Amino acid sequence: MGSLDLEDSQKCNINRPVENLLDPNEFRRQGHMIVDFIAEYYKNIEKYPVLSQVEPDYLRKLLPKSAPDYPEPIETIIQDVQDHIVPGLTHWQSPNYFAYFPSSGSIAGFLGEMLATGFNVVGFNWVSSPAASELESIVMDWLGQMLCLPDSFLFSGKGGGVLQGTTCEAILCTLVAARDQVLSKIGKQNIGKLVVYGSDQTHSAFQKASQIAGIHPSNFRVIETTTSTSFALSPDLLRSTICSDIEDGLVPIYLCATVGTTSTTAVDPLGPLCDVANVYGIWVHVDAAYAGSACICPEFRHFIDGVEGANSFSFNAHKWFFTTLDCCCLWVKDPNALIKSLSTNPEFLRNRATDSKQVVDYKDWQIALSRRFRALKLWLVLRSYGVEKIRSLLRSHVNMAKFFEQLIGRDERFEIVAPRNFALVCFRVSPSAISKGIIKSGGISENYYLGEKDSKEDEEKYCTNEINKKLLESINASGRLYMTHTVIDGMYVLRCAIGATLTEKSHIIMASMVVQEHADSILNM
Amino acid sequence: MGSLDLEDSQKCNINRPVENLLDPNEFRRQGHMIVDFIAEYYKNIEKYPVLSQVEPDYLRKLLPKSAPDYPEPIETIIQDVQDHIVPGLTHWQSPNYFAYFPSSGSIAGFLGEMLATGFNVVGFNWVSSPAASELESIVMDWLGQMLCLPDSFLFSGKGGGVLQGTTCEAILCTLVAARDQVLSKIGKQNIGKLVVYGSDQTHSAFQKASQIAGIHPSNFRVIETTTSTSFALSPDLLRSTICSDIEDGLVPIYLCATVGTTSTTAVDPLGPLCDVANVYGIWVHVDAAYAGSACICPEFRHFIDGVEGANSFSFNAHKWFFTTLDCCCLWVKDPNALIKSLSTNPEFLRNRATDSKQVVDYKDWQIALSRRFRALKLWLVLRSYGVEKIRSLLRSHVNMAKFFEQLIGRDERFEIVAPRNFALVCFRVSPSAISKGIIKSGGISENYYLGEKDSKEDEEKYCTNEINKKLLESINASGRLYMTHTVIDGMYVLRCAIGATLTEKSHIIMASMVVQEHADSILNM
Repeated sequence: MGSLDLEDSQKCNINRPVENLLDPNEFRRQGHMIVDFIAEYYKNIEKYPVLSQVEPDYLRKLLPKSAPDYPEPIETIIQDVQDHIVPGLTHWQSPNYFAYFPSSGSIAGFLGEMLATGFNVVGFNWVSSPAASELESIVMDWLGQMLCLPDSFLFSGKGGGVLQGTTCEAILCTLVAARDQVLSKIGKQNIGKLVVYGSDQTHSAFQKASQIAGIHPSNFRVIETTTSTSFALSPDLLRSTICSDIEDGLVPIYLCATVGTTSTTAVDPLGPLCDVANVYGIWVHVDAAYAGSACICPEFRHFIDGVEGANSFSFNAHKWFFTTLDCCCLWVKDPNALIKSLSTNPEFLRNRATDSKQVVDYKDWQIALSRRFRALKLWLVLRSYGVEKIRSLLRSHVNMAKFFEQLIGRDERFEIVAPRNFALVCFRVSPSAISKGIIKSGGISENYYLGEKDSKEDEEKYCTNEINKKLLESINASGRLYMTHTVIDGMYVLRCAIGATLTEKSHIIMASMVVQEHADSILNM
Repeated sequence: MGSLDLEDSQKCNINRPVENLLDPNEFRRQGHMIVDFIAEYYKNIEKYPVLSQVEPDYLRKLLPKSAPDYPEPIETIIQDVQDHIVPGLTHWQSPNYFAYFPSSGSIAGFLGEMLATGFNVVGFNWVSSPAASELESIVMDWLGQMLCLPDSFLFSGKGGGVLQGTTCEAILCTLVAARDQVLSKIGKQNIGKLVVYGSDQTHSAFQKASQIAGIHPSNFRVIETTTSTSFALSPDLLRSTICSDIEDGLVPIYLCATVGTTSTTAVDPLGPLCDVANVYGIWVHVDAAYAGSACICPEFRHFIDGVEGANSFSFNAHKWFFTTLDCCCLWVKDPNALIKSLSTNPEFLRNRATDSKQVVDYKDWQIALSRRFRALKLWLVLRSYGVEKIRSLLRSHVNMAKFFEQLIGRDERFEIVAPRNFALVCFRVSPSAISKGIIKSGGISENYYLGEKDSKEDEEKYCTNEINKKLLESINASGRLYMTHTVIDGMYVLRCAIGATLTEKSHIIMASMVVQEHADSILNM
């Protein structure tokens, strides 16, 4: 055939583009530049305001109206990243980042992501890259062992683990599996009868997943929690709610229990909840998105006692496990339940390995077909640091949170408003401090009193909330740190979530001082 | 407060872990090592068998049973990646990769992913990193312009674009939006009446999305296509199917039209299909996952003529646009339809920017809450290469496909079985060549004739398919290239999808020679 190639290629007008977009030398040169750029970014990260201070639509004013027709050099692009993108970042890797829950990166996590990006395999099934499927199964077994999950959640015990992008996807996949198990018995036309259960502290991802899965909104049960149980879901209330639904002819299918709620890291009592749910054949998913990490430490493992009664369990390695976004670890006892709901077998994906049923095709364990090789970063984190160091890092965050709690707690103007189970401290300026502030200064703006209040008590509550809101906004506007808020039991509360990789004791001391300084100013004392 | 810190920190037992997991110097050192490793990987990529040749469960035998307790050096880990992971990869970046559709990486895409990983922001809403939201809106408008999408799909025209992970998610999100629009009028209890439409060539992602969204399986319409329309969906058949459903009291809600089907890159006629769908108020989504990229070239733009009648449009930048996995570009005319179905507003995410309604909170445009800063890699690709170079790269792939088609087509044993619209060539050993082969050699294994066949014609068909299957397996087992197959109109067909970044003319020549050599051997001529 050799003699044909010149002639034919001319006919076909193959203009070989001048540049190889994966040229190894150029890859090396530009790759090193970006590594150096990010290293400098980490070195200087404390110089930036933690919460971005830009105004909406700032970037459109800085960038061209359309993509360039011709190449621009990497040097120009890097300069634009520094000048235009960095100011618009909220610096999640800053040691002064205490907002939401942290997204704690690490060198090992970064390297794993680089490798996955470099290989750029699309691991939908085993044959598309055996290493991607197999490494995932292996690290999920490793992690399951570290969490002392019962063997029934591991591949060795006929369960298994899978890496999803986020908890939202983990909940949606397990909910669909639970839904279809029941519908296969009672008929698909009865989808309107299905009921799902969570508490008023359950993550909004659950509501969204239920909505996507076609659960009727009026069958989404939000069971109230109270301060008396530290915002944990009550098994008794769960039981009575279920019974009432059954009496109404409805069909309970799914409970989302939480270990470490987003607002306050409350812990639902898994054992008693599973006991109730199991009576009615309800699928129990345990969402330990944040707190699951800590449960690799023996002293925290008790928080997931009872997980053996659940059907599925997930936590986010991208939150508090030094693995970059996104990486949600999900274990299920019955992979076939997932597979029945989520598998598709188009001809173009058929292959001998799949037909042999000897391999795991993870496409059938998740929403999407395509999937990145996420297991690499988790493997690198586990190997680069080892179990003991990861434990000691998690403990140091918990201890820093204790420390912050003490520093804030000894200032009588503040109160801690929920038990600190892990590394989140929920606090606020107390109503009594505010009363004093009002008396002393008269400095509270009149608009705190706008709107009609039912009583003096309501007015005080409202005023307390507004002052705490003002305090948080003032702290965040300073750029020195970033915390966020929640509202529990009607109280506006500041959340200090410790866990950013770069956070050290000195940042905790500084954080408590910043909070106090801004309180000084706002309370005008 | 300074005097307190020593005392308190001792009480709290803050053991500062010895190592900083984001230490800039160590980050630089290890980052450079991995860049060099990947550069070497690209340099040597042709030395590896394209399709991994490992056996199921190969990796469990090579790795320890549990995670290490203590750190391992990066040098050891890199060696293990080389020794244990690389052999288990199917090399999607190889120039001899012609399977499925390519996943074409580039230096710029890699750098963008590195930056996103380094910043590791969780961009669920604007305030969590304004640059992430705003850059995404900007590049989606840029890309929309490049595709000559009508202004109604761009932010400037009250539509807008969002980066999803995959087409599966894009379809699920738009389907849920379409579903809820209708249910808000006819009542949520009528979910069982909703009907969705695609063809027998529509990607399996659509079936999966429908299943997840609670569409009754018997209301999932698969409209047959034929060779006579080159496997495109017929507007007349669509209309008659819709009418029949309406007569049966059902409610049509969604059509998934495809530009560039997975089997053969068939193109559904968007204009006429939208004309039909619009009469019945059906949401039309255009899935141009693969072929959308090519439509930035004026000569291919006609394939999406009629898109102005659709409600949403998506293509995968991670397929044929030099942007690493995952990156699916979705535009919608009515973002509010997505937001109504997918938004959640938990207190802990409330903020002033969101309340002002001046910003885009992308969490309400997708399934998950958390999201990576994907816009960076797309921005880097567009800027590093520019529109003209990207067009010339896409054209070179199409021209290489034409070239392959000619090389294979002039060998009379082969036939091209579907029109080559883009850079995919569908071909097979023709039945006549096989008849000759059988006569000449008697070399066809008996088991091709196993099973009862209705007729001699059926037997011939079966035999042709089995031989083509054997040919493909033989080619792939050689490790010299990787192609996959499909079945259309009962024919087992080999697919040669050209588009890997490193592929050059020489690889095309080699690929055609490999195919011919293996055909020689199998046909025993």
